[in-house]
Amino acid sequence: MFEMDSRLQQDSLVLGDFGLCRLLLSKDANYPWFILVPRRAGVSELFDLSADDQAQLWKETTLLAEVLKGEFEADKINVATLGNVVKQMHMHVIVRHQSDAAWPAPVWGKVPAVEYAAGEVEAIRKRLRGLLGNGYQEA
Amino acid sequence: MFEMDSRLQQDSLVLGDFGLCRLLLSKDANYPWFILVPRRAGVSELFDLSADDQAQLWKETTLLAEVLKGEFEADKINVATLGNVVKQMHMHVIVRHQSDAAWPAPVWGKVPAVEYAAGEVEAIRKRLRGLLGNGYQEA
Repeated sequence: MFEMDSRLQQDSLVLGDFGLCRLLLSKDANYPWFILVPRRAGVSELFDLSADDQAQLWKETTLLAEVLKGEFEADKINVATLGNVVKQMHMHVIVRHQSDAAWPAPVWGKVPAVEYAAGEVEAIRKRLRGLLGNGYQEA
Repeated sequence: MFEMDSRLQQDSLVLGDFGLCRLLLSKDANYPWFILVPRRAGVSELFDLSADDQAQLWKETTLLAEVLKGEFEADKINVATLGNVVKQMHMHVIVRHQSDAAWPAPVWGKVPAVEYAAGEVEAIRKRLRGLLGNGYQEA
């Protein structure tokens, strides 16, 4: 049975569900930092997913990346699945700007997380509304 | 016309070609650190690739990850396309061990690169020989 890792639960907010993945927002206002988590049990590496699920993860990742690039006028989208600490497969999709706190370094461990102010998360939800396709259901 | 970014050329060695991507080895003996570069001009983001090329990149990435996991007994494979510095699309596929120099942090910027000793790169080539499928041609 699919269950979200406790560390992911603690460090992020649920935005909604794609066909395969739960869409999370990292609790770090330094960057619009999204995380896709396949709703499958016992998956750590990409190749632990079935071929169909792999293809779907790729689709959801690429769709999200493209939407974020446009909506947030990203200078670059960073896409990564690391999992050295949290073993449950999760795909980071992060909007990067040349003006952000870690640029051009990767975001992990670079600067302390900044809390979202009241209303900012809701504003992000609103910005994404209608952009993520028919396969997406907002939470 | 496809041409490798000068920074990628400087920091890595060419191992061979998959159907879509050139396979590189990062000149950093801290980790078995591989890089896939689609042989396409003008591609920076995942979604700059055609749908067919995206699917092929995913296949080559996943195949490589699975082979490396087994052959190098990885504790985790890290897969990432960042591109904040080198704009040309490239996909990192990195073998991580709990005993490695940066664990559990991501590898970028963590510890200085270590040069490969004589024979070590050839040993890696040999270990991969025959494992990467019919679509792979060693350089």
